[in-house]
Amino acid sequence: MTVPAIDFARLRADVEALSAIGRHEDRGIHRMAFSDGDLAARHWFRERTEAAGLDYFEDGAGNLFGRLGWDGERPSVMIGSHLDTVPGGGPLDGALGVLVGLECLRALRESGIALRYPLEVAAFTDEEGRFGGLFGSQALAGQLTPAMIHGARDLDGVTLTQAMAAWGLDAQAALFARRSPESLHAFLELHIEQGPVLHRGGHQVGVVEAITGLFKWDVHLIGEANHAGTTPMSMRRDAFQGLCEFAGEIDRILEEHGGPQSRATIGRVELSPGAANTVPGRAAFSLDVRDTDAHTLSALADAFRRTLSALARRRDLMFEFNVLSEIAPVRCDPGLVQIIADGAEQLGLRALKLPSGAAHDAQIMAGITRTGMIFVPSIEGRSHSSAEWTAWEDIERGATLALHTLIRLATSEA
Amino acid sequence: MTVPAIDFARLRADVEALSAIGRHEDRGIHRMAFSDGDLAARHWFRERTEAAGLDYFEDGAGNLFGRLGWDGERPSVMIGSHLDTVPGGGPLDGALGVLVGLECLRALRESGIALRYPLEVAAFTDEEGRFGGLFGSQALAGQLTPAMIHGARDLDGVTLTQAMAAWGLDAQAALFARRSPESLHAFLELHIEQGPVLHRGGHQVGVVEAITGLFKWDVHLIGEANHAGTTPMSMRRDAFQGLCEFAGEIDRILEEHGGPQSRATIGRVELSPGAANTVPGRAAFSLDVRDTDAHTLSALADAFRRTLSALARRRDLMFEFNVLSEIAPVRCDPGLVQIIADGAEQLGLRALKLPSGAAHDAQIMAGITRTGMIFVPSIEGRSHSSAEWTAWEDIERGATLALHTLIRLATSEA
Repeated sequence: MTVPAIDFARLRADVEALSAIGRHEDRGIHRMAFSDGDLAARHWFRERTEAAGLDYFEDGAGNLFGRLGWDGERPSVMIGSHLDTVPGGGPLDGALGVLVGLECLRALRESGIALRYPLEVAAFTDEEGRFGGLFGSQALAGQLTPAMIHGARDLDGVTLTQAMAAWGLDAQAALFARRSPESLHAFLELHIEQGPVLHRGGHQVGVVEAITGLFKWDVHLIGEANHAGTTPMSMRRDAFQGLCEFAGEIDRILEEHGGPQSRATIGRVELSPGAANTVPGRAAFSLDVRDTDAHTLSALADAFRRTLSALARRRDLMFEFNVLSEIAPVRCDPGLVQIIADGAEQLGLRALKLPSGAAHDAQIMAGITRTGMIFVPSIEGRSHSSAEWTAWEDIERGATLALHTLIRLATSEA
Repeated sequence: MTVPAIDFARLRADVEALSAIGRHEDRGIHRMAFSDGDLAARHWFRERTEAAGLDYFEDGAGNLFGRLGWDGERPSVMIGSHLDTVPGGGPLDGALGVLVGLECLRALRESGIALRYPLEVAAFTDEEGRFGGLFGSQALAGQLTPAMIHGARDLDGVTLTQAMAAWGLDAQAALFARRSPESLHAFLELHIEQGPVLHRGGHQVGVVEAITGLFKWDVHLIGEANHAGTTPMSMRRDAFQGLCEFAGEIDRILEEHGGPQSRATIGRVELSPGAANTVPGRAAFSLDVRDTDAHTLSALADAFRRTLSALARRRDLMFEFNVLSEIAPVRCDPGLVQIIADGAEQLGLRALKLPSGAAHDAQIMAGITRTGMIFVPSIEGRSHSSAEWTAWEDIERGATLALHTLIRLATSEA
């Protein structure tokens, strides 16, 4: 046996090869789940897995696995992420985590190292959400129901059932993809940060402590549309002015009721009638609020609701809101966080413990096994764009830390 | 001769008949300039004018006139407004002023009253702006050029030249519609207020002192689009937050730099990318500011520019703005304001002197002759809607005041 090590040239070649699949010139990468690009990436992954001498497996949810030392009895250490992208995505979001996992398994296999637990590299189906998101990991974690599978459809109205059938797959078979907690020893995901914290702070690697939960509201403030010239300021019920007052309270609410990881964003606004010479009678907007702590999220929801209600009353506006989504925050396994942090220290990496502000398959996997995440820096925080990138040295550092972590998990009692 | 008086039943029948022309059931009235509805209204107006025994005249701009005592030598007292509507408009905006003028001339003709000056009732072309607005009155005031006429087109790309040619009219003939100031003794327009001030204050009639000027800007605040979950609040350059801070300064700016008639409205907002989970990188919005005083408008423009510039600098945003339009405020003739106000007092009407916040043909006519305006109350200020209405009693009061004013103007030296 030799000391296992990442073959960086091989990893880099894989990143470059995969990034050419589904690429539409200057419009980024298009590998939405079960699109032609996604299928091409899946075939490529299968070839690379088999060429590496790993066992290839595909479950009922369309999740792909490369396996090392699999015997169907011992729990496995799994590393994985996803191959699908948003429309016009970049080369690393999801893909890097799958390719680093593949490289780690190749390196471990070649080294001949003795493994206490089998290893699996996973490529999860539809993480990005053509049909809702996190589909493959939810299938694995046993969170799907027949009705959820039946109802899943994309923005064009194509159902998941139709999209999978077009490639010879039975969507309802995703129910068979469920894994028992006993079949897993631990789960690790490497991902780009998709935010600016590591890059701007000069950190080489991030150790994720928690994945933020969120609530997303669709809010309507309703006043009265009036002529901008003939309606005195004092006789207006301007819905947009109400929205602006609310938006101006966001920082105060986060300071009073949130924590250092709290975020709140108004990203979508629609005014009606929406004409320059008309006082807006209606303002519809989104409110996206995130935190790593469930109690903090709940306190923030209360505070935002109170503020909206009070200002609507004072300004003689009606207000309505619908909860579009609610996702509970997830803590990474403290023992695994420690293993990753120790590994970073041993490798001499400048590491930062931080939360993940974006959703990941890891937060689903945390429901059935102890889970950890490694972040590599995103240049200027760019993601979901063809400009998404991470320095090659940081990719190599992150892959090395992932390998180091897998060795700890798969060879010791840890 | 008898004492001239409005025949209210006849006026009411005219209002009802005209309101049926161009009406699309529950979608309001569609009489945009040179549409089928507009043409039908024009034919109807000609018939009513000739049936009243008035001389009918149509000028090169498509303005229609009924004339009483016209001799081509003495200056005339003109009363008028417009027959065209916005798409889905109401029955009174413009139409009421034309019909009251028609009724006044009928009443004066029937009374046999001796007139020092001829009288004209005018229906101006395209006040509402299918091709830019205030076209007929601008033609009369000599404000058009061949290039303006040639360039005028509607939102579908139909040129004014094409639209007029379809009805056998030559758009360039509008240049011949110019009237010399010497041909006019005074101009009077009766119009619905289109705002809530008279109705809510319990006033029966309004005496317009000035027509507000305005500037309209298209403003862009440019920051950086980022992931709503992964970008800490302190690392954001949120263009929408910049807009909200600006919108929150509007009241202060009006208090510090404006007057009681100042208005400022943000009626249109577009965020980019405009997704709930993305910090807005760009906010484009309209700013519509109005006042009756040119110096106040100029001071407001300075203040808004300074505020935008300062907050953009502080928030690390770029800002750009384009001036979409600038219209100077116009004062009504003080002597004519006094005549109308005296008339209202003699008639025992509860009158309020107020500015017009909307644009009217009267503001163009003020450029060539002394001009006055009478407002009747709009119920709840509604206008540009099928719900637009004025109580019949208020219509009768306004028409009587208009007749009273015309008698003063056309029979005395005043």
